[in-house]
Amino acid sequence: MNHTRLVACFFLALAFGIASPTLAQTTSPATSQGLKIEPLPAPNTGEWHKANSTHRQATFPQTTDDGRYWFQFRAPNAKSVQLEVGSRRYDYEKGGNGLWNLFIPHPGPGVKLVTVYVDGVALPEPGTEIFYSNGWKAAIESPAPGEDYYAIKDVPHGDVREHWFKSTVTATTRRSFVYTPPDYDKDTATRYPVLYLQHGNGEMEQEWTHSGLANFILDNLIAEKRAVPMIIVMNNGFANRPGEPPAGMRGTSVGRGPAATAPGAGGNVAPVSAFEEMLLKDVIPDIDKNFRTLANRDHRALAGLSMGGGQAYTIGFRNLDTFSHLGIFSGAIGNVSTLPEPMNDPATFNRRVPVLFLSAGTVGSDLQFHTSAKTLVDKATAAGIHATFFESPNTQHEWQTWRRSLHAFAPLLFKQ
Amino acid sequence: MNHTRLVACFFLALAFGIASPTLAQTTSPATSQGLKIEPLPAPNTGEWHKANSTHRQATFPQTTDDGRYWFQFRAPNAKSVQLEVGSRRYDYEKGGNGLWNLFIPHPGPGVKLVTVYVDGVALPEPGTEIFYSNGWKAAIESPAPGEDYYAIKDVPHGDVREHWFKSTVTATTRRSFVYTPPDYDKDTATRYPVLYLQHGNGEMEQEWTHSGLANFILDNLIAEKRAVPMIIVMNNGFANRPGEPPAGMRGTSVGRGPAATAPGAGGNVAPVSAFEEMLLKDVIPDIDKNFRTLANRDHRALAGLSMGGGQAYTIGFRNLDTFSHLGIFSGAIGNVSTLPEPMNDPATFNRRVPVLFLSAGTVGSDLQFHTSAKTLVDKATAAGIHATFFESPNTQHEWQTWRRSLHAFAPLLFKQ
Repeated sequence: MNHTRLVACFFLALAFGIASPTLAQTTSPATSQGLKIEPLPAPNTGEWHKANSTHRQATFPQTTDDGRYWFQFRAPNAKSVQLEVGSRRYDYEKGGNGLWNLFIPHPGPGVKLVTVYVDGVALPEPGTEIFYSNGWKAAIESPAPGEDYYAIKDVPHGDVREHWFKSTVTATTRRSFVYTPPDYDKDTATRYPVLYLQHGNGEMEQEWTHSGLANFILDNLIAEKRAVPMIIVMNNGFANRPGEPPAGMRGTSVGRGPAATAPGAGGNVAPVSAFEEMLLKDVIPDIDKNFRTLANRDHRALAGLSMGGGQAYTIGFRNLDTFSHLGIFSGAIGNVSTLPEPMNDPATFNRRVPVLFLSAGTVGSDLQFHTSAKTLVDKATAAGIHATFFESPNTQHEWQTWRRSLHAFAPLLFKQ
Repeated sequence: MNHTRLVACFFLALAFGIASPTLAQTTSPATSQGLKIEPLPAPNTGEWHKANSTHRQATFPQTTDDGRYWFQFRAPNAKSVQLEVGSRRYDYEKGGNGLWNLFIPHPGPGVKLVTVYVDGVALPEPGTEIFYSNGWKAAIESPAPGEDYYAIKDVPHGDVREHWFKSTVTATTRRSFVYTPPDYDKDTATRYPVLYLQHGNGEMEQEWTHSGLANFILDNLIAEKRAVPMIIVMNNGFANRPGEPPAGMRGTSVGRGPAATAPGAGGNVAPVSAFEEMLLKDVIPDIDKNFRTLANRDHRALAGLSMGGGQAYTIGFRNLDTFSHLGIFSGAIGNVSTLPEPMNDPATFNRRVPVLFLSAGTVGSDLQFHTSAKTLVDKATAAGIHATFFESPNTQHEWQTWRRSLHAFAPLLFKQ
């Protein structure tokens, strides 16, 4: 395992030189013209075919193998129809029969939110898949040349279980999503290490497999013998105790989990949130009871993206008797002016935490997360701590950054 | 087991006397006024609270324990905002700050699709859950007094697995959803019977658990010892062989599975569809290989709703060496002028098919399915066949009919 900084040099032939694939944080007021394609092709002919993310009963969106997209929307009485793709807006062109058409260039690799504006009224693009991203949003899956590590390949596949458990902390019945590796039901004497993997402030527990394709990433890594077979447990990162306000409402900080402050890392130490308490008291015991786990710290990892990265940082650092491998992807880790207290003894820390992995995209909305992650890794490295920094070139605060992060992180786990 | 006609007399105190809960088939052009509530209450106060189907980051829809609903939509520049709930349309009332409000009476029990119309532009109600029902649609879950059989109760819960398999017939990797009963991972020597359960023309493989709550229905029946522990396998009912047009496109009959004609039941016998071939050659062997099944006809049931009911009828009757229990919920069973050929020998049929169950709702869009199901059961009964007919009072071609059907059907299975 490489304990020094790991700079990602793969994916360099990325995405046709597109500089800035995006998930919308802000929307530019100006609109852009799409591609000009005349005469209109017939759908499902020539280079055009339904996108994988286009639902069974829809014909559009259509796509090409090199990732251009064709959208069509019926609005006979509309004066304007626009499409927001990430942070860009395009104007559809009105054709016959009240059908509006739009052709766009490759929008950058991975999951891109797509919202239609009909005379200013916003709606999810109706032909494509729905994901949870700060509400239910339509999104397309755009091809990523050179990145086939999350494709559904002809390899053995693990199951993804919706698994219900009783939380004593929240006094509710909740669900975990649980990935079991391909041979889990065959090798019934084998026990497995567990990665606890958390979503961000805008998502829900199903999105690590639904948007992130975490199960296919692991299937492929396990088939290539690059990652050891492991269980992955994905929970909803919001929780509230009975009587507390409901967690995770938009525009509030209620139930956001611990503020991103690890013990000793500057600022006040966050109080133990309902999520942290539930993870330790309910989730882990439930998983260790119902799945064939290796139930000890050496075989338990905690990772997450954005808010979930902050949770991995805070909860991980103050529960090193529970977790030994930590992954912080575009992590909301707040103040990094001083190192967390457990790093004061680098030799002990390096022995107890064989993997401390931080990552971020290099552009746009991930720049702030890139800065804090790099600062922490630089300070830790200077102090003699083994820490890994992974960069996702030309991606922002978006799923492609986190897919790549998981793909780089998982091979490091449970190898000591 | 009661082999004679079973008329459902429970649920009679249903839904506050509302005559016709609906899933939209047609929309009445006239709009209705909602309830008048003045002054506007504050959300999450008094009798108002977020509905279970309202997503984490939304405040609306709000509901009351007796099932009234409050919708709110922000549209400062709109001239009209309406909500379609099932087959009814209501006008929102414009309030301050560009917020439009609508209060409606209990819309009838179960899943109700909700679509907002802003100056005529249709969009999914943005605060509530998304389901697949002829495209991605927003829906609310409305309470059903007296019907708690699908509630998440404090009983042991089975898992629902997303399970991937290679189909040789379609030459693609597809998924089954697989319910394993609560003790499946504990009693690792036990083998279980299997119910293959299919969705309708408008749905996908996840909707039997997502919209239908099939897993909670079984959890509760198993906890009450009314149903034997069983595995449920749910597939996408559309399939096409390589080179065939993609199955299940709207407005076509391509890949709809077999036409609803059982052998000898009038009309032409449907050719073996890609779905039927895949179910027999790929799905069942995959399940028998990867799960602890009782891999024989006596422990295999086939059931479905609407198109899936037609599939259970056709595929079931011509594969009685594979299936022994059949459930046809609001089934698209077509021509019932003559009985299917296997019924020509009632004694043999009754011995080989201990459960033949048909059901339908009593109103609106399920009337045609009610007529054909009742006709078939009456003819079969007159011929000495043991068949069960189940009525769902005051429901149409909608999930509440199918939840009730599964709840009545599952306790009959695998008891001989």
